[in-house]
Amino acid sequence: MIGSSILRGAISQKMCKKIYVFEKNKKYKNQIKKINKRIIFVNKLDRKLQSMDLVVISTPMSEYQKILIKLNKFLTPRTLITDVGSTRTNVSKLIKRKLSKKLNWIMSHPISGSEASGPRFGNKNLFKNKWCILIKNKCEKSLENKLSRFWKKLGSKIIFMNEKEHDQIFSVTSHLPHLIAFNLIKTAQDFQKIHKKNIIQYSAGGLRDFSRIAASNEIMWRDVFFNNSGNISKIIELFIKNLNEFKLDINKQRDSRLISKLKKSKKVRRQILLLKQDIMKPDFGRQN
Amino acid sequence: MIGSSILRGAISQKMCKKIYVFEKNKKYKNQIKKINKRIIFVNKLDRKLQSMDLVVISTPMSEYQKILIKLNKFLTPRTLITDVGSTRTNVSKLIKRKLSKKLNWIMSHPISGSEASGPRFGNKNLFKNKWCILIKNKCEKSLENKLSRFWKKLGSKIIFMNEKEHDQIFSVTSHLPHLIAFNLIKTAQDFQKIHKKNIIQYSAGGLRDFSRIAASNEIMWRDVFFNNSGNISKIIELFIKNLNEFKLDINKQRDSRLISKLKKSKKVRRQILLLKQDIMKPDFGRQN
Repeated sequence: MIGSSILRGAISQKMCKKIYVFEKNKKYKNQIKKINKRIIFVNKLDRKLQSMDLVVISTPMSEYQKILIKLNKFLTPRTLITDVGSTRTNVSKLIKRKLSKKLNWIMSHPISGSEASGPRFGNKNLFKNKWCILIKNKCEKSLENKLSRFWKKLGSKIIFMNEKEHDQIFSVTSHLPHLIAFNLIKTAQDFQKIHKKNIIQYSAGGLRDFSRIAASNEIMWRDVFFNNSGNISKIIELFIKNLNEFKLDINKQRDSRLISKLKKSKKVRRQILLLKQDIMKPDFGRQN
Repeated sequence: MIGSSILRGAISQKMCKKIYVFEKNKKYKNQIKKINKRIIFVNKLDRKLQSMDLVVISTPMSEYQKILIKLNKFLTPRTLITDVGSTRTNVSKLIKRKLSKKLNWIMSHPISGSEASGPRFGNKNLFKNKWCILIKNKCEKSLENKLSRFWKKLGSKIIFMNEKEHDQIFSVTSHLPHLIAFNLIKTAQDFQKIHKKNIIQYSAGGLRDFSRIAASNEIMWRDVFFNNSGNISKIIELFIKNLNEFKLDINKQRDSRLISKLKKSKKVRRQILLLKQDIMKPDFGRQN
């Protein structure tokens, strides 16, 4: 989905003389063929890689080890490598330990996506006005600029971070929310089993939003959870501590304390709307 | 918001000869005036109530005690009373203990709404194809039918439950998700304080959906949490148990176990979409 959105954006912005795609999944390959006739498919990663200016790896992070062997074998310093993974410390380590010293890989993390997987859900505007985080490393400044320009042309706003800062921030704004959504759905499923009741049909009141996030790709999220387990564990602990306090507020009917907490969380929504991180309309403008 | 949606629906369906509104908030009163010129405003709950066929109470549940005194004083059995509160055992007790035995109150819970509060956010189609739960009690069957017809004309699908079943089911599908959303935002705010970092700007990846739910009305939700604390406490405990297991899966890298749990939660999303409880498009069709 992310890969095909980059593809669509790059084509629409006329950014490439030639576009090569390596895709193993046949169904996905057919979907990609429909995007544009100019796309050239390569059947394996080999010598052809040498002619490319930019290689964008858009796979689950658990595939990187295998891919890296091919990059080491066939690439030269003239090609800039990037990827779009959601955790960065793990990939940073992999690059330091395994990537040939002469090669250039600057990590990207476009903060865009949805619960849908696969090329047919791609969208050339997916990155428009969204953050793309680039990770500082020892590559030349000119290569950083080149990668910045690439993402800016796709519509992204660029910010540089180091991998540690990135993984800490996104453990809170992305990884925990996803884990919580998976966990809420699991809890509702457990409740159904215990009470032998179909409750999903009454999900309109809150559960359905979480169910969307919990429909995200399991391979991608397994990779994220495993690779950022330290930060995620810490934030889970804070989350559980806060939830137990909410439970006490409710059971002890601590009125003003509860009201003040519920009110404060509205501030965050206002901030998100002011930052244009979400649509202004109530209920996301959803007509259902 | 709910009250004004009923108002808009009832006007659009030509269901009422006369429509009276009692609203204390001046800003809201002005918003309601703009909906339709035929609306008659009453400045207090008094003898005029007698002429009404149906009274719909659409206030926070913590206002019911005060309202009930007026109903007892001025209403006769010819008027059917209903309300739109989100928990039912508490109101059921209130009716049994405090409502004059000769009066008829059948509780409704339309499963509709959004994070927005106030009459200007109302929508005549808010209830279309949504569940409205009616609570069985000792009122005559003919009154139940009358109330069913009312909600069906507004577009609702009707189901009867008892108050205990209702409160148990909605503790899972609505109350817990809201509490979790409030708690997630609180946790993100705590993180910001601890680390002195503005992370809300990177909220696109999951946090923003929860921030919408956590922007819901604090009075309404305080009332819900206080009045369904028993069921909510139990489901919080199951939620925390499950979250601690996810944490272990992640920290011990239990691969197949984690993948199987992440995969299973997709089933719920499919079910919700099949039941037409949400829009089919990825990311709610959101263009941002």
